[in-house]
Amino acid sequence: MNLRFSNALILSRPDKPLMRGDVCVTEGKIVSVGGASSGFAADKVIDCGGNLLMSGFCNAHTHAAMCLFRGVADDLPLDRWLFERIFPLEDHLTPEDVYWGTMLQIAEFVKNGITCMADMYFYPDSVYAAAKNADLCLALCGGANSSSSYDVVKFIEEMYNKYSTISDRVRYFPGLHAEYTCEESLISAVADLAAETGAPTYIHLSETLKEVGECTVRHGGLTPPQYLHKLGFFDNGGLAAHCTYADKDDISLLAQSGVTPVINGGSNLKLASGIAPVFSMLQSGMHPALGTDGAASNNATSMFREMYLYSCLQKETMKDAAAVGAEDALAAATVNGYRALGFAGGSIEPGMFADLVLVDLAQPNMHPLSDPKKNLVYSADASAVLMTVAGGKIVYEKGIYHIGESLDKIYRECAARIGRLLTEAHF
Amino acid sequence: MNLRFSNALILSRPDKPLMRGDVCVTEGKIVSVGGASSGFAADKVIDCGGNLLMSGFCNAHTHAAMCLFRGVADDLPLDRWLFERIFPLEDHLTPEDVYWGTMLQIAEFVKNGITCMADMYFYPDSVYAAAKNADLCLALCGGANSSSSYDVVKFIEEMYNKYSTISDRVRYFPGLHAEYTCEESLISAVADLAAETGAPTYIHLSETLKEVGECTVRHGGLTPPQYLHKLGFFDNGGLAAHCTYADKDDISLLAQSGVTPVINGGSNLKLASGIAPVFSMLQSGMHPALGTDGAASNNATSMFREMYLYSCLQKETMKDAAAVGAEDALAAATVNGYRALGFAGGSIEPGMFADLVLVDLAQPNMHPLSDPKKNLVYSADASAVLMTVAGGKIVYEKGIYHIGESLDKIYRECAARIGRLLTEAHF
Repeated sequence: MNLRFSNALILSRPDKPLMRGDVCVTEGKIVSVGGASSGFAADKVIDCGGNLLMSGFCNAHTHAAMCLFRGVADDLPLDRWLFERIFPLEDHLTPEDVYWGTMLQIAEFVKNGITCMADMYFYPDSVYAAAKNADLCLALCGGANSSSSYDVVKFIEEMYNKYSTISDRVRYFPGLHAEYTCEESLISAVADLAAETGAPTYIHLSETLKEVGECTVRHGGLTPPQYLHKLGFFDNGGLAAHCTYADKDDISLLAQSGVTPVINGGSNLKLASGIAPVFSMLQSGMHPALGTDGAASNNATSMFREMYLYSCLQKETMKDAAAVGAEDALAAATVNGYRALGFAGGSIEPGMFADLVLVDLAQPNMHPLSDPKKNLVYSADASAVLMTVAGGKIVYEKGIYHIGESLDKIYRECAARIGRLLTEAHF
Repeated sequence: MNLRFSNALILSRPDKPLMRGDVCVTEGKIVSVGGASSGFAADKVIDCGGNLLMSGFCNAHTHAAMCLFRGVADDLPLDRWLFERIFPLEDHLTPEDVYWGTMLQIAEFVKNGITCMADMYFYPDSVYAAAKNADLCLALCGGANSSSSYDVVKFIEEMYNKYSTISDRVRYFPGLHAEYTCEESLISAVADLAAETGAPTYIHLSETLKEVGECTVRHGGLTPPQYLHKLGFFDNGGLAAHCTYADKDDISLLAQSGVTPVINGGSNLKLASGIAPVFSMLQSGMHPALGTDGAASNNATSMFREMYLYSCLQKETMKDAAAVGAEDALAAATVNGYRALGFAGGSIEPGMFADLVLVDLAQPNMHPLSDPKKNLVYSADASAVLMTVAGGKIVYEKGIYHIGESLDKIYRECAARIGRLLTEAHF
């Protein structure tokens, strides 16, 4: 299938000037960018109408099926949110619950221009089935802990073997929930598995000050990054979600070992967890990725909101309105995430996945068009998304979803399932 | 004209439970709420399709025509933003520029569900003409300073006399830009005018720490609220935009004199100005209103974003995820603003203006429907707005704007005008 996106204002990468022209796609990958591409034999031409074509967003940290819990655990601190609401509900989750919750989240993702997700949750087979429906680029991340009722290391190994070769749009990251929920023997065993396979790893890291403080007490003064490095968890690099309280030494350590922090500004604000030191990370040469976290703690999963927060929370924290610019936020939301996850995507360049978003420039909040990049970060929201393309397939277009299940069925299934879960958890 | 909005899920006020039923409107005002209203002789029935009907938003602080400057002054600190970019551009503004800039802003407002605006800017006659086009509820606020080239007090008096009786949907607030741009004689003269007319006033107040510090040096240790109270500026109450650095005594003073703080979380973040003490204001019994500020500093003008920030920035600041709940944010965005401005609106109750927003519940980010109020604040964005009704007239419906000018013409005019202004200001 050969596709031509014609008449576009192309944002190839956040650090490049915009250009006008066509983008040609063959078998789900970009083959040419810019110019009029009249020699390309397209099976289908999509007229972009002069609107802005950019990379789809990479949501580099989420728990997609937690979408089921949206609106049932708001206005609570992280500890009570997690231990009193979320864990009791999760105790009753079935693989089918995870499938339908993930489908609801994917519907929201494609409406919001998200084409790649790093998902940490239960039942990866269900998550994979849902993501495959919508052709999303998927990184499955282990997220078990020492309370898990199954053999975690064996399971991670099985999943790694199954999903590492299934498609160039799927990867599996051996990973764990967090230092504070995992015993040392489990962390070491996953580190050993990473060493054997050469796989980078994934974990929640230094999300709250409580986590950091308690870790230093438990482990002879070591912060979570220091402790995990000592155990070899990051010997092949990887990704660390949150890093809200990564200090100067932590940032240096993570940068040295090639670990990408995934910033979740919206979730951290709502749970009152803090604001990650993005300015320092950028100064250290890191390329942070961006995530929405799960819908139970954010509750939107909009990369537009996350881009705005990535830049503006840092301006406020540093008391410097120039601290982190719009272009940095665009990079975090696209190319940084794809590259950290090891996918050929996140920019509109030959060889990259045709994971694309068409942004409506005819909406009032995009005018005047003095600087479309600034408008994207500071002014746009998800209503600007006209079309989302994942792996060369149109998965969303003007209110129509092509994600393998109907919205009506997704809504019915999710309503019934959260009703059952609330009853089973005795809420 | 009798209108019936049938089959709605009605959010009459943020502190009331949702109900199902009809809302009937006669001559731009609500006459009945709830039930099936079969006896009402409607000229037109609008089937809400089970979607959520709520009050239109009150944007209680904006500079609408600054929409022209969107994208030309980003990633700069407030001082440089104001003195190096904004003031030089404003030196060249014509009444026609303000009309077209305001029209662009109004297009964005109605798309985002905003039906009432408190506008502080030049050429109030242009602002009034634009707002009248779209039937918006309008509070015009004086915003001149001691550098203004005309007789400010005379002008305020003329405008007050002209706009105080023109319509029950228009009010004029004698006001000034800020303490740091106005000499004492000017502030006193406006205070005298307020005393004569009984009018409440409007001003930017304690927006930055610099403003507060310099005020205390200039005025014998008095903070901006203390200094303005001393001069009698707030003897009839009024509204104060920002109040970012209002301390405990300031809050008490403002509360006593019935001054409503207008919170502008988005603008304050982007300009690195700070986070207003909303929690303390609520504890003091205040009912803060919410504003977007101008599009040159925000840059979106979405009350969805402002509601999210109103609640979540406070959670983070107070390190308490329960500090300010979703219902408080909804009140700030609707009823608090309308009431502070003296308009009969902001809630769906008999006698109130038919300023309404129909919110799409069929979008993924509104599901599950476990708690629609939480979803509105934490998960919704402007793409949820199906219809906006101002004074009983449909001003926006599914991408169609009824605001007296076409989008194409507005975009063309604004593009040409910002081009001319940038040239004239030698940028």
